[in-house]
Amino acid sequence: MSSATGLRPPAGERAALNSALQAPRIRIEQVAPSVDQGVLPAKGVVGQPVTVEADIFMDGYAPLAARLIWRGPGTLEEQSTPLQPLGNDRWRGAFVPHRSGRHRFNVEAWLDDAGAFRHVTHLPSDLIVDVERLAAGFTSAYELFPRSQSPHVGRHGTFDDVIARLPALRAMGFDALHLPPIHPIGWTNRRGRNGSPQCEPDDPGSPYAVGSAEGGHTALHPQLGDMASFHRLLSAAAEYGLELVLDLAMQCSRDHPWLTTHPEWFSWHDDGTIRSADDSVEFDFYAEQAQPGLWLALRDVVLYWIDAGVRAFRVAHPHTQPLPFWRWLIADVRSRHPDVLFVAHSFGRPALLYRLAKLGFSQSYTYFIWRNSKGELTDYFTELGLPPVRDFLRPLLFVNTPEVDPRFLQSSGRPGFLIRAALAATLSGLWGLYSGFELCESAALPGSEEYLNAEKYQLRQRDWQAPGNIIAEITQLNAIRRQNPALQSHRGLRFYEAFNEQVIWYGRFTPELDNFILVAVSLDPYRSQEATFEVPLWEFGLTDNGVFEVEELMRGIRFKWYGKLQHWRFVPSELPFAIFRVRPWQMPAP
Amino acid sequence: MSSATGLRPPAGERAALNSALQAPRIRIEQVAPSVDQGVLPAKGVVGQPVTVEADIFMDGYAPLAARLIWRGPGTLEEQSTPLQPLGNDRWRGAFVPHRSGRHRFNVEAWLDDAGAFRHVTHLPSDLIVDVERLAAGFTSAYELFPRSQSPHVGRHGTFDDVIARLPALRAMGFDALHLPPIHPIGWTNRRGRNGSPQCEPDDPGSPYAVGSAEGGHTALHPQLGDMASFHRLLSAAAEYGLELVLDLAMQCSRDHPWLTTHPEWFSWHDDGTIRSADDSVEFDFYAEQAQPGLWLALRDVVLYWIDAGVRAFRVAHPHTQPLPFWRWLIADVRSRHPDVLFVAHSFGRPALLYRLAKLGFSQSYTYFIWRNSKGELTDYFTELGLPPVRDFLRPLLFVNTPEVDPRFLQSSGRPGFLIRAALAATLSGLWGLYSGFELCESAALPGSEEYLNAEKYQLRQRDWQAPGNIIAEITQLNAIRRQNPALQSHRGLRFYEAFNEQVIWYGRFTPELDNFILVAVSLDPYRSQEATFEVPLWEFGLTDNGVFEVEELMRGIRFKWYGKLQHWRFVPSELPFAIFRVRPWQMPAP
Repeated sequence: MSSATGLRPPAGERAALNSALQAPRIRIEQVAPSVDQGVLPAKGVVGQPVTVEADIFMDGYAPLAARLIWRGPGTLEEQSTPLQPLGNDRWRGAFVPHRSGRHRFNVEAWLDDAGAFRHVTHLPSDLIVDVERLAAGFTSAYELFPRSQSPHVGRHGTFDDVIARLPALRAMGFDALHLPPIHPIGWTNRRGRNGSPQCEPDDPGSPYAVGSAEGGHTALHPQLGDMASFHRLLSAAAEYGLELVLDLAMQCSRDHPWLTTHPEWFSWHDDGTIRSADDSVEFDFYAEQAQPGLWLALRDVVLYWIDAGVRAFRVAHPHTQPLPFWRWLIADVRSRHPDVLFVAHSFGRPALLYRLAKLGFSQSYTYFIWRNSKGELTDYFTELGLPPVRDFLRPLLFVNTPEVDPRFLQSSGRPGFLIRAALAATLSGLWGLYSGFELCESAALPGSEEYLNAEKYQLRQRDWQAPGNIIAEITQLNAIRRQNPALQSHRGLRFYEAFNEQVIWYGRFTPELDNFILVAVSLDPYRSQEATFEVPLWEFGLTDNGVFEVEELMRGIRFKWYGKLQHWRFVPSELPFAIFRVRPWQMPAP
Repeated sequence: MSSATGLRPPAGERAALNSALQAPRIRIEQVAPSVDQGVLPAKGVVGQPVTVEADIFMDGYAPLAARLIWRGPGTLEEQSTPLQPLGNDRWRGAFVPHRSGRHRFNVEAWLDDAGAFRHVTHLPSDLIVDVERLAAGFTSAYELFPRSQSPHVGRHGTFDDVIARLPALRAMGFDALHLPPIHPIGWTNRRGRNGSPQCEPDDPGSPYAVGSAEGGHTALHPQLGDMASFHRLLSAAAEYGLELVLDLAMQCSRDHPWLTTHPEWFSWHDDGTIRSADDSVEFDFYAEQAQPGLWLALRDVVLYWIDAGVRAFRVAHPHTQPLPFWRWLIADVRSRHPDVLFVAHSFGRPALLYRLAKLGFSQSYTYFIWRNSKGELTDYFTELGLPPVRDFLRPLLFVNTPEVDPRFLQSSGRPGFLIRAALAATLSGLWGLYSGFELCESAALPGSEEYLNAEKYQLRQRDWQAPGNIIAEITQLNAIRRQNPALQSHRGLRFYEAFNEQVIWYGRFTPELDNFILVAVSLDPYRSQEATFEVPLWEFGLTDNGVFEVEELMRGIRFKWYGKLQHWRFVPSELPFAIFRVRPWQMPAP
């Protein structure tokens, strides 16, 4: 031994030893939020706390202390707050961002040795949170085809017709208005009703076949109106508290001016015909001749509409364009206009959906539309509600879309529409419907999930007072959302036990539990169901004999729940769900 | 629009655009195994496949292809194998390492466009797998105090007495022999029986108080024998197929020579007394004067015993030494002797336990000893059996230790010992017991988990043929482990449904399912239990009416299970568990 202890290590090993001697003793691991090891930003919303957690530990049993350090966009000034230990080496703290833009944070830990700051350790690089305005996380969206808004059957609707619809939309409680593309529509290969390859002269064609001799992605369809009437719509919508969301369709009809002015942006066969099998053609993003012209031109389309006053865009099928394109475009636009929202209208596979959200899309369509059973809903929203997904993806729950007439609704009747509206309106801060849903429309092309006489290919005028509509219930759902912060985010969701496979039962809550909502939905549109369920008294530290003051918000009734097991009956012909606002009750002093 | 499309971007933005244009279109994500984003090695075992999975995707619907590339230690030669798509963008492949040491792998994906290799994308850096010899993953360990092995009551045992015990250990099927420290024991502050601060002259003291005037960490306790007898033990153990595992206790008694020769390695009070409250003192790893002398000296202790022929070390409480120290020491030793195993005997908090495993410990003690109910066992082994933990930690399931007399065993009687042995022997490739367990010893210091008359502080001679022992059952369990590859790893574990909260029911299997074991254990040591359980016919693609050929390996009986629901009765006084080897049965052709 004595021969060894005095030895110095050979030069080759000294580096490894020195590096170990200088390595920090304190470990900071498993930090959340952290998206792709901090390479990509987590998402936040102005005014809502960003909660940070980390495993912090070192050898032995010495006392540690830790703090959270953060700074907002455009400043070098740091703020900090202590982290609190939760047990088992997990620590937690939070900060509230007060403006939109990129926030950075770090975690610092040190040996709390008689108050002296020693061995301070922090993360090797800051983690990032992109904070957006409130609407990014809390929106009730309504989608309509402007051309169908004419009150006169057969007349093409206009932007002014849409203006006339705004009071009704606002009365229902919506605050975002999604529009399909509003540009000139191509004639070549135009599709007729129900997507038929046979097109009649008065068929309007799909608005997704963007571009004609009258212009492309920056032009307006002449039958909708001119730029002045578009600006009237923008202003009127703003006055009613509705934000316009424009559709970005990254494709061209065969009559788009770009096919002539920029043939190098497309992929051509040797015989001079263009590669496509439909009423529109796709860009060749990676053609050498298309770089960087095409990418810049598409970015400039977005900037054009921003200049016109638009601040929110929905992208049709972004999973069919290169991922680096979206990462660059969103970053480029946000560097000029940090308040612009991007919505990913993608039903691609999970990995693509998640990647798009990570690259900066503010809101994401999800598979909610195809999740119907208690097991499916519980599994899917548990995945969406836990890290890491919770931190980079905000689920936008559309109950239907112009392209998807959900099978469940095709046979469920009015109770089915109430069920799906209640789920969408309470499972995320973001929900939406495509017009016709409130009238319980569900006629489909046989054996498919496509609407019969879909508006994508024809005008559709509707009777907004048709009997059996669920406008009153939707209005009430949106009012409840506005009054309860717990429903204004996808965060704060937990499923509880209801002893009936047809009844789903979950809680929605704010971080401080000062707003606590319990939702019970029967998933059975045909028969009445009853369920006994566990009231989560434990969330407030109450025993199984605790008491909740309860208000059922759809029916406006108040009562108390004594004890953990309670019971409810759901009647499809009346209302197949209930929304309870609860708070702990203590017997008043005598 | 026309004004915009022709524009070149200003210089400041060109970099971002160019970087996006050159970014790979194909994403390779969520690669497993990957420990701490590839910074630290995953673990592998010679001859067992390393299965690699990854999410591989790009925009759109173009066909992709992918392969796994790997190379072994000390070679630049790469091998590769195709990855197969599993659906939803997940891909899988595997390679089998044939020697121990560091292996590297990468995943490469490309657009499978008419077979041409284009856009090839791979991970930015290789991922690593440290492959160890078989014993790292499959070992049945027996721990004993050499000083208690004398057949004569009151005489201090010797290495030669241990040699006399080897045939019995081998007959029970053990292949590793864990020893507590075998060095001289300090006299100052020596503790008496049951840890008493009053020490009688003939009390042997705790072997963890390492060092006396007779030597320190490289000396042998004179009463155990000299170096020649230690070598005799090493050789004899090897002949019986038992590997010696030495205990590394990184601390000193107050009589350790280092306190005199290297006072700078310890922490002293101003009055010249040493910081400590017990029979041993700890090193001050970060004292400036201890660097690098102390670190090198401790490394040299390990090298000394390696020179003596030892290839496996168990470290006592490594969570009380700096993590960078262990990372360096293990890497340094392995760079000279890749076949050396390190066992982390730590019951620290989870984050520390996991970190130690990541830093290179081959085997890790776990909380198994305190997981008793069906829920606890299922949750804990699900966590240990899934990525990422599965890939960096091999659980060594000791049913008891010299320091822990589990509460469950203190009241369970013989059936409880059978239950815990069955669980440990079948839930991981690594299990072990500390001597006395096979005799169902459980007398504890009242109200504690410490053994009464613990061997840590006194000699204990035992009657190895005492009635009620479970030697026959342990022998059978070890034989079953040797005959079934599914039980020779902690990988390949799945819990199934048994309709009784007292009965746990799980499968153990090889990757190819060519060895499939089902284990049913009643957790109730007091009463008989019956359970109906689901036989996982679906694992072989069979319907609920499928048939398994079954062999119950403890009882040596053969039969068939027709259909998914089967039943078993567990009698504590006979055998509270069953181990079934199953394979699909097809009716022979007539």
